[in-house]
Amino acid sequence: MKKILIIGIGAGDPDYVTMQAVDALNRTDVFFIMDKGPSKTKLIELRKEICRRYIKGNNHRFVDATSPEWARDAEDYLSTVDGLNRDKQALFERLISQEMSDGECGAFLVWGDPTLYDSTIRIVEMIAGSGRYELEYEVIPGISSVQALAAKHKTTLNRIGQSIEITTGRKMAEGFPEGADSVVVMLDGGDTYKQFADQNVDIYWGAYIGMPDEILISGKLKDVVDDIERIRTEARRANGWIMDSYLMRRGGGAKI
Amino acid sequence: MKKILIIGIGAGDPDYVTMQAVDALNRTDVFFIMDKGPSKTKLIELRKEICRRYIKGNNHRFVDATSPEWARDAEDYLSTVDGLNRDKQALFERLISQEMSDGECGAFLVWGDPTLYDSTIRIVEMIAGSGRYELEYEVIPGISSVQALAAKHKTTLNRIGQSIEITTGRKMAEGFPEGADSVVVMLDGGDTYKQFADQNVDIYWGAYIGMPDEILISGKLKDVVDDIERIRTEARRANGWIMDSYLMRRGGGAKI
Ligand SMILES: C[S@@+](CC[C@H](N)C(=O)[O-])C[C@H]1O[C@@H](n2cnc3c(N)ncnc32)[C@H](O)[C@@H]1O
Ligand SMILES: C[S@@+](CC[C@H](N)C(=O)[O-])C[C@H]1O[C@@H](n2cnc3c(N)ncnc32)[C@H](O)[C@@H]1O
Repeated sequence: MKKILIIGIGAGDPDYVTMQAVDALNRTDVFFIMDKGPSKTKLIELRKEICRRYIKGNNHRFVDATSPEWARDAEDYLSTVDGLNRDKQALFERLISQEMSDGECGAFLVWGDPTLYDSTIRIVEMIAGSGRYELEYEVIPGISSVQALAAKHKTTLNRIGQSIEITTGRKMAEGFPEGADSVVVMLDGGDTYKQFADQNVDIYWGAYIGMPDEILISGKLKDVVDDIERIRTEARRANGWIMDSYLMRRGGGAKI
Repeated sequence: MKKILIIGIGAGDPDYVTMQAVDALNRTDVFFIMDKGPSKTKLIELRKEICRRYIKGNNHRFVDATSPEWARDAEDYLSTVDGLNRDKQALFERLISQEMSDGECGAFLVWGDPTLYDSTIRIVEMIAGSGRYELEYEVIPGISSVQALAAKHKTTLNRIGQSIEITTGRKMAEGFPEGADSVVVMLDGGDTYKQFADQNVDIYWGAYIGMPDEILISGKLKDVVDDIERIRTEARRANGWIMDSYLMRRGGGAKI
């Protein structure tokens, strides 16, 4: 039997790590490190920092899961998330079968919370369900960027008795969700919030939340929309990458 | 200057506490303990356990914020959340002005995440904004019951590229939200999920998540609806209270 721990490490600040995650880090024999793209260096650094800070002793190893072979294989599929996930599944299977011995514990350190816009759970579930391996897995929740965003702005996600929608930039581009009061937008490659600047909407925007470069802007959307766009563009240029998200709420109603 | 820390302690398991929360606990001079109702004993016990486990030294005190006077005052307003919050504001103001000295740090330990269906942030914001006190406050995020629910069921909150709605039992009773794919229901005093048993819906239900009495049930809603209702009723009767929530997803689509 092999065991996989899917560990949420929180969205940026090493202090977001939970006691349950610390315990899981200390049970792990092999860490699979998966980051790629322009943010890779910063994100790997943070994972290593978390391991250094919270793991006692030295009974663990790291496996780089983005070695050139894998990356080359990946190219064929990059066009669809589905293809990307199929590729990731093949990669995870090789890691699990070749890089872990029986009785060992392997871990994926997932940014933020593993249950939110992340495919690790789905992929490990498919592998465990395939019956090809004796495999158990556990999911350890982490502080998501959604919570970090609201906490840093010192605001609640919902208004009293109202609901919250968490969505992607792509879906948000179709329009403000029908009947939604508070909407959190993640994975926005564009500047979708701009579409709503002529409406009575409040925005709480944040980039690199919990990290040294953190930027927070909030206010009436029409008052801050230009600032957000300018600062977002500058930050992305300066760092070579950006991770940002925002909460939008229809204005007009009581703030509480 | 006085400082208030609004500390998310996670939704049930003391191991959900983050490093940031541990740090905040250790900066606190006075803890305001607010629980009431039938779950009071268990919830206070958990807060005390968290303090015992994670606070070094003994430089802190507890103030019971539900003393009979406050409880009596509260009665007049209990009819509306708004009234209840006005009453809480008066109570918090008395705590802050009478139970803390200048330069001290007071804390509210909030169940789960303070940004989700909890009024502490709103109330402290109103007091800080009133200008009557020199008051600073910070919000420390915690693992919410929504994340704990998904993690325990080892499932993601969203399907690939789809959005998530987080809502209340009361709003859910109005119907499955238009266009929603995954819906998390909290604060359901009834058994609202029953309304959807004739639809093609999957459910992931959990009660007392992260606590010793944890119960998890999942499956096609029509297959498990009776089990959930029966077990929920029994558990509520046995414990005198229940805290439960559930994720519902329209079936039929690919599981991923
Ligand atoms: C693939 S999703 C992963 C979300 C992650 N599992 C979580 O719980 O936050 C990546 C998106 O999360 C948001 N995000 C993650 N970390 C962030 C941070 N530190 N600051 C702002 N947004 C962040 C951004 O919207 C980004 O596009
Ligand atoms: C007033 S809200 C507070 C939510 C809290 N701030 C959080 O982040 O989970 C209370 C509701 O949260 C849900 N809840 C909180 N803790 C729970 C637990 N341990 N298990 C199941 N549901 C829980 C229930 O739906 C309950 O009615």
